[in-house]
Amino acid sequence: MEIIPAVRKQYVELAEPSLSDSDADLLRLERATGPVKADLPLLRRLPGLLRSCGFKGTAVLTDHHLVDFEPGDTTDKCYGVAFDIGTTTMVGSLLDLRTGEELAVASAMNPQVSFGDDVVSRIGYASESPDRLEELRSRLVDAIGEMILQLCRDASVSNECVYEAAFAGNTTMEHLLGGMEVQQLGQVPFVPAHARGLVVPSKELPLPMHRGASCYLFPLIGGFVGGDTVSGMLATDIAAADGPVLMIDIGTNGEIILVSDGKILAASTAAGPAFEGARISCGMRATRGAIEKIVLPACQQEGDQVAGRDDDLRLSVIGGVDPIGICGSALVDVTAALLDSGVVTPEGRMLLGEELPADLPVAIRSRARAGENEQAEFVLAVGSDDRNDISITQKDIRELQLSVGAIRAGVQILLGMAGLEGKDLRRVLIAGGFGSFIRRSKAQRIGLLPPDVEHGRIHYVGNASLNGARFALLSTAARRKAEDLARGAEHVELSQDTNFQAVFAEAMIFPSG
Amino acid sequence: MEIIPAVRKQYVELAEPSLSDSDADLLRLERATGPVKADLPLLRRLPGLLRSCGFKGTAVLTDHHLVDFEPGDTTDKCYGVAFDIGTTTMVGSLLDLRTGEELAVASAMNPQVSFGDDVVSRIGYASESPDRLEELRSRLVDAIGEMILQLCRDASVSNECVYEAAFAGNTTMEHLLGGMEVQQLGQVPFVPAHARGLVVPSKELPLPMHRGASCYLFPLIGGFVGGDTVSGMLATDIAAADGPVLMIDIGTNGEIILVSDGKILAASTAAGPAFEGARISCGMRATRGAIEKIVLPACQQEGDQVAGRDDDLRLSVIGGVDPIGICGSALVDVTAALLDSGVVTPEGRMLLGEELPADLPVAIRSRARAGENEQAEFVLAVGSDDRNDISITQKDIRELQLSVGAIRAGVQILLGMAGLEGKDLRRVLIAGGFGSFIRRSKAQRIGLLPPDVEHGRIHYVGNASLNGARFALLSTAARRKAEDLARGAEHVELSQDTNFQAVFAEAMIFPSG
Repeated sequence: MEIIPAVRKQYVELAEPSLSDSDADLLRLERATGPVKADLPLLRRLPGLLRSCGFKGTAVLTDHHLVDFEPGDTTDKCYGVAFDIGTTTMVGSLLDLRTGEELAVASAMNPQVSFGDDVVSRIGYASESPDRLEELRSRLVDAIGEMILQLCRDASVSNECVYEAAFAGNTTMEHLLGGMEVQQLGQVPFVPAHARGLVVPSKELPLPMHRGASCYLFPLIGGFVGGDTVSGMLATDIAAADGPVLMIDIGTNGEIILVSDGKILAASTAAGPAFEGARISCGMRATRGAIEKIVLPACQQEGDQVAGRDDDLRLSVIGGVDPIGICGSALVDVTAALLDSGVVTPEGRMLLGEELPADLPVAIRSRARAGENEQAEFVLAVGSDDRNDISITQKDIRELQLSVGAIRAGVQILLGMAGLEGKDLRRVLIAGGFGSFIRRSKAQRIGLLPPDVEHGRIHYVGNASLNGARFALLSTAARRKAEDLARGAEHVELSQDTNFQAVFAEAMIFPSG
Repeated sequence: MEIIPAVRKQYVELAEPSLSDSDADLLRLERATGPVKADLPLLRRLPGLLRSCGFKGTAVLTDHHLVDFEPGDTTDKCYGVAFDIGTTTMVGSLLDLRTGEELAVASAMNPQVSFGDDVVSRIGYASESPDRLEELRSRLVDAIGEMILQLCRDASVSNECVYEAAFAGNTTMEHLLGGMEVQQLGQVPFVPAHARGLVVPSKELPLPMHRGASCYLFPLIGGFVGGDTVSGMLATDIAAADGPVLMIDIGTNGEIILVSDGKILAASTAAGPAFEGARISCGMRATRGAIEKIVLPACQQEGDQVAGRDDDLRLSVIGGVDPIGICGSALVDVTAALLDSGVVTPEGRMLLGEELPADLPVAIRSRARAGENEQAEFVLAVGSDDRNDISITQKDIRELQLSVGAIRAGVQILLGMAGLEGKDLRRVLIAGGFGSFIRRSKAQRIGLLPPDVEHGRIHYVGNASLNGARFALLSTAARRKAEDLARGAEHVELSQDTNFQAVFAEAMIFPSG
């Protein structure tokens, strides 16, 4: 990709005014930069600025707009931030706009989770009153502002030299970031306020960037299929695929894109936050102390090398410390293993005592117990005095079934619309911060990925939404392409598909293995 | 002129969203209006706005920008204001943007006069500190805001339906209106901050208009030759003249344009506020109570019909009331008459007693007296008990000499540059609120207009600056033309002309008649 960001800097040494050359200040500058317009706040300061530095300084330009004029040569300080604003998790990246080099990365919880852990509950909250919308908006903007300052500290960069931001988020997140009304998003037919990409002055949010900085919000496709999907399509260039390609962005709001025969189908599905550790009894994000990988010897496969007793389960904990919870990838692991070992039935029932398979190793069998409210649970780690046991409960399995079922049903409906089956897919792309850490075979085992897709055709594309935001930060051509992708995709409103409920109910049943 | 204003209204009835038509709100609107962008504050409200009126309402558009969406059909309410911002006097006009009809006119003193009565003194004041610049800026903006509200009251129009303003002012006035630094305008080579026309959100000034309204500030030519000159050129179409044409805009800041052989020469000259009644002992604006016309029988000409005693002077007072002062046109009249009758010499000395011509009627002679500080003065009206006499003093004559000399010297220098004399001029256009009221023969008598121009070639064009602002309000093509005029004119910096002082000194001597 050619790096041609929206913002550029140009160092100029202008002739000082004289009787024979008394052009106005801005005209004088334009002789070096080409035609530009300046907003009133900058024009007010321009005469003093130019004279304070002897007419030698750096013009900060976007398109034909003068963002600022900085004394001296500051062309080596030109930064931007790219963000993936997830329903649960936000990731930001600080880039050098000249080289595209990434200088820092930061992630944080979306502070709106305390108002509801999925988009529907947030829409409900924000719709109650303008104050509540404002509450959600300002909490989000404040948290993003903190992340920008953190990124700048980490890279020893002044936030006054951050001139652009690019935001990819789902429809609801982009609306809440902009402070747009969302009532209409909470009702059929789920209509967004806008769909094209937006360029918004950063001071209108506001964010701690250069005072003349701009924020780019990705275009939306429609309904809940938002800018993060477009961004992911941009990053993976999926529309240019030469055979049927499926992309699944696994997050609280799951997105599914199917490209086939030059047609792009896009759907959103309410997967819930289980993959990000929420709504799971011992769930947590994939940070220090999280169990991120689990292997049961009964279903051990090549490559599953994890320390532990021979016939007992083996855990891998982020940071190598005592475990304090379980993150999404291990949740998929343990569910796959419990299905394989017969502790959990395809219908999702967790067995206890006599019901358990007879050939189950004792070390495993002893972990299945009746916990709180006689609910079945499977103990992963025994807590010390000051810490509770870490378990997977029957309720956790149900939660996962809902999440898996939502994505699986969406995939099946899109494939059906295109007249395809899983085996017809040339490639399956797994996107999302969480997606990168799941093991393909385990995800296929629980039905999260189509079981009939050849293992080698499944690829991780990382946080494609963040990557696309990086592209948009570095290239205005990428923004134009994003606009085309958004308008070229056909939005499929899954909830209004007459088959959805039936397909969903069936999709919640785990594959029989 | 075709009326195609920058702002237009379009009533639309949009299809309500449905499952088969779930386009985003703004995209839905664009299906009716064509592609538009909306700022974040409007986007935030758009979903609620559209639904509150059943998707039937009026889009307010400028170019490809959505200014607002108003419930119902408001296409018949679309207004704009045009302003001539003079150093001393401001005139505003409220127009119906659909028809071009003028609905109200208002004029007021520029409140900055209390900080200095010419541009140089205001630049000096504003340059002392940012606070003083802000003081001048806000006083002006407040006064303009008051005028807008007054115009709206007079026409029974809501100021929320005023979507555009166009401002023509000299360089200093436009800088102070925008709040731009002016230090550099106070020093050779007198460099403005900008020269192209500006479009500024009205909320940045701020002015009491629609919240999304825009303000257009005319382009400047250079130095002190500003937007009012460009506006006047636009209104008179002077650049298209088929022979040498001179335009003089008589105001505190006088502007002179000479068009000859396809070349446009433009100069500014510090005429001072005498013509607007300031710096004159009994001076006042041309309002009720002002003596606006004076005839001395000694120099009576056909058409000079004014009530009065046969051999004494005759006065005409605005409103037909007792006089309370003298305005610019009468100042020119009386000076011409005093020159003709020999009371004032061509050098500007006012004679007394024995020095007065022997054939002067007694009634006139008795009006010449030694006043305060033994200064010669000529009594125009004897005051009643509670009112002082109204006189023209020696000092007033000196003030007028400076004003006339400044304009006359400017005209001579421009004519000289073009190799022309007054008699070569095809037409002479007199612009400015004051200009319309002076009598051509009297103005020629005192040298304010070139004496060698045939009487019939002198035309009044009224407040051409205000007229041009009206054009710019009603036509974007007019704005483009203004830009071309501003950039196509050659700015002549009179004060830097080596001959200026000599020409000026000579120009202060009144023609010998």
